[in-house]
Amino acid sequence: MDLKSGVTISLDVMGGDHGPSVVLPGANIALQRHPGLRFVLYGQEDEVRPVLDTLPQLKAASSFHHCEMSIRMDEKPSQALRQGRYKSSMWRAIEAVKTGESDVAVSAGNTGALMAMAKFCLRTMANIERPAIAAIWPTIRGESVVLDVGATIGADAQQLIDFSMMGAAMARALHGIERPTVGLLNIGVEEVKGQDDVREAGRLLKETELPGLIYHGFVEGDDLGKGTVDVVVTEGYTGNIALKTAEGTAKQIAGYLRAAMTRTWMARAGYFLAKGAFDRLRDKMDPRKVNGGVFLGLNGIVIKSHGGTDAEGMAAAIDLAYAMAVNGLREKIEQDLRIFYLRVSEEAAAGMPESK
Amino acid sequence: MDLKSGVTISLDVMGGDHGPSVVLPGANIALQRHPGLRFVLYGQEDEVRPVLDTLPQLKAASSFHHCEMSIRMDEKPSQALRQGRYKSSMWRAIEAVKTGESDVAVSAGNTGALMAMAKFCLRTMANIERPAIAAIWPTIRGESVVLDVGATIGADAQQLIDFSMMGAAMARALHGIERPTVGLLNIGVEEVKGQDDVREAGRLLKETELPGLIYHGFVEGDDLGKGTVDVVVTEGYTGNIALKTAEGTAKQIAGYLRAAMTRTWMARAGYFLAKGAFDRLRDKMDPRKVNGGVFLGLNGIVIKSHGGTDAEGMAAAIDLAYAMAVNGLREKIEQDLRIFYLRVSEEAAAGMPESK
Repeated sequence: MDLKSGVTISLDVMGGDHGPSVVLPGANIALQRHPGLRFVLYGQEDEVRPVLDTLPQLKAASSFHHCEMSIRMDEKPSQALRQGRYKSSMWRAIEAVKTGESDVAVSAGNTGALMAMAKFCLRTMANIERPAIAAIWPTIRGESVVLDVGATIGADAQQLIDFSMMGAAMARALHGIERPTVGLLNIGVEEVKGQDDVREAGRLLKETELPGLIYHGFVEGDDLGKGTVDVVVTEGYTGNIALKTAEGTAKQIAGYLRAAMTRTWMARAGYFLAKGAFDRLRDKMDPRKVNGGVFLGLNGIVIKSHGGTDAEGMAAAIDLAYAMAVNGLREKIEQDLRIFYLRVSEEAAAGMPESK
Repeated sequence: MDLKSGVTISLDVMGGDHGPSVVLPGANIALQRHPGLRFVLYGQEDEVRPVLDTLPQLKAASSFHHCEMSIRMDEKPSQALRQGRYKSSMWRAIEAVKTGESDVAVSAGNTGALMAMAKFCLRTMANIERPAIAAIWPTIRGESVVLDVGATIGADAQQLIDFSMMGAAMARALHGIERPTVGLLNIGVEEVKGQDDVREAGRLLKETELPGLIYHGFVEGDDLGKGTVDVVVTEGYTGNIALKTAEGTAKQIAGYLRAAMTRTWMARAGYFLAKGAFDRLRDKMDPRKVNGGVFLGLNGIVIKSHGGTDAEGMAAAIDLAYAMAVNGLREKIEQDLRIFYLRVSEEAAAGMPESK
């Protein structure tokens, strides 16, 4: 297979706050950047056709399948699964990954429903108990992979190790780092009881030297923005709150900056002169650029875009899907897991692992 | 007691990265702002005296007690407690609150040791199982109280309710809001299993309408910076990570901004013109201004300053201590807890509480 030209992405065209009017123009932008890309589109014909007809290039690169129903943004996961299974645009975009019609599915639909359907349709990988959602986190060094940002609450030591391996495989697929550094998110205070799973995961990662990652140790909340490690691992409740806290803080500071720069005529004049610099800053902080949560641990890759994003944001999520497919994320994860479980079983056969 | 003039603060003068050279000038700044303030100082005489002699006003407003030992910043809590009990400057600053010699203790020493000593010396309040550390969080609306930011990991429903009441009492003492709004930190995805304690706490807060707070419901990570509620409640692992994530993000963006503003001569010229605006922004984002974690739930108030802060930051922590003493934080918490437990026992006597 010619990887560079052979990537197919299935799209839930109805997903997100704006449906086809954002998803299709977004796909069209991504297509300009990756001319070999092909799409399988799922959605309601009367809503999709009028938009698709205005985008002839995209139309030529896509096949379209009518779906009689779509999942609402506020639908409960269990309800979405019950009513939308087999026939919704969301389900069918995922199913295309299962049948091999597409390499990755992308949806801007509601996260809970998407995860419920993805789990039901694709099932978790062998040895993986729980999937995770990985986010790309902009840092002062570049980008880190952070997971889980909200697939499930709580994680035991083994699940944290699974997340570490999957996150490292994703960092490798994304940035080509042979052995990404991995840190476990923790709090600084020593001897605080309660995070036994985090400590146990740390001990195991240290002992079981894995070929696919370098275990760095514990990291704290402020290490996220510093980019101390390539991959930051935590359970989904904390990860989700950390992600949204960072997003909120960025917005808050942008608001302060806007207010400061418009308050006096001197400030406005300064802003005018430094406009190029401010534009660069805005560009750097643009949340659309890192749009896309990657579902890891399932037999197939599904990417969740922000529901409220625009065409540029959707294009970024599709770019991410393309990168994951071209770089064989799923195969990388499967290979790493095989090596780990082989090693674990060898060590079990040889007695207790050595403490280092 | 004349509250306005009668506040005494005990200081662990040896605490923090810089000890007396920061703590004493900090106390001196706070003294200019609150001329009625008095201090009880604990530290090693040979280090304290030379600095104190240069600050005659502070010297006149203080009594000094020599302590033969001080707690190191990297000491483990259990070790600090074993070795530093009864005789370290940290212990004695806390003990002064217990004996009534001071109203509040302030230390920039290590958090784990300070909490271990404060718990051992002051003990938890009646009905309170676990203390919490509350931080003041700058928001676009003003300031919120966020707790627990790292005293303990995990919290059951009752502990989250205790935190809610204590946080509301602190918001009342700090901002004079009669019934502060309280939100429980949670993640947006519906039907995710695991946060049963958070849901249960939410149910109970809704049912048991408390006179001291208005229960708002769940909030997410991005509500912290928005200031959606006056008090945000979560367990200590997540709270600590959220706090450090926000601090890290603020630093990261400040770094981007600095880089952008020095890159071209146009940007530098713009920066020069808008310098007043940038100064205001820097002032607004100054982490020293909101320095001070308040230990809640003990029979006495202890405030933890950042270890690496300077005299201005130390003064802010002392200002906070002053505000907590003047506004009777401890009495407010005790009163709210009494009302809550009275109500709970009345409802228990009358059968199940009504669902609303």
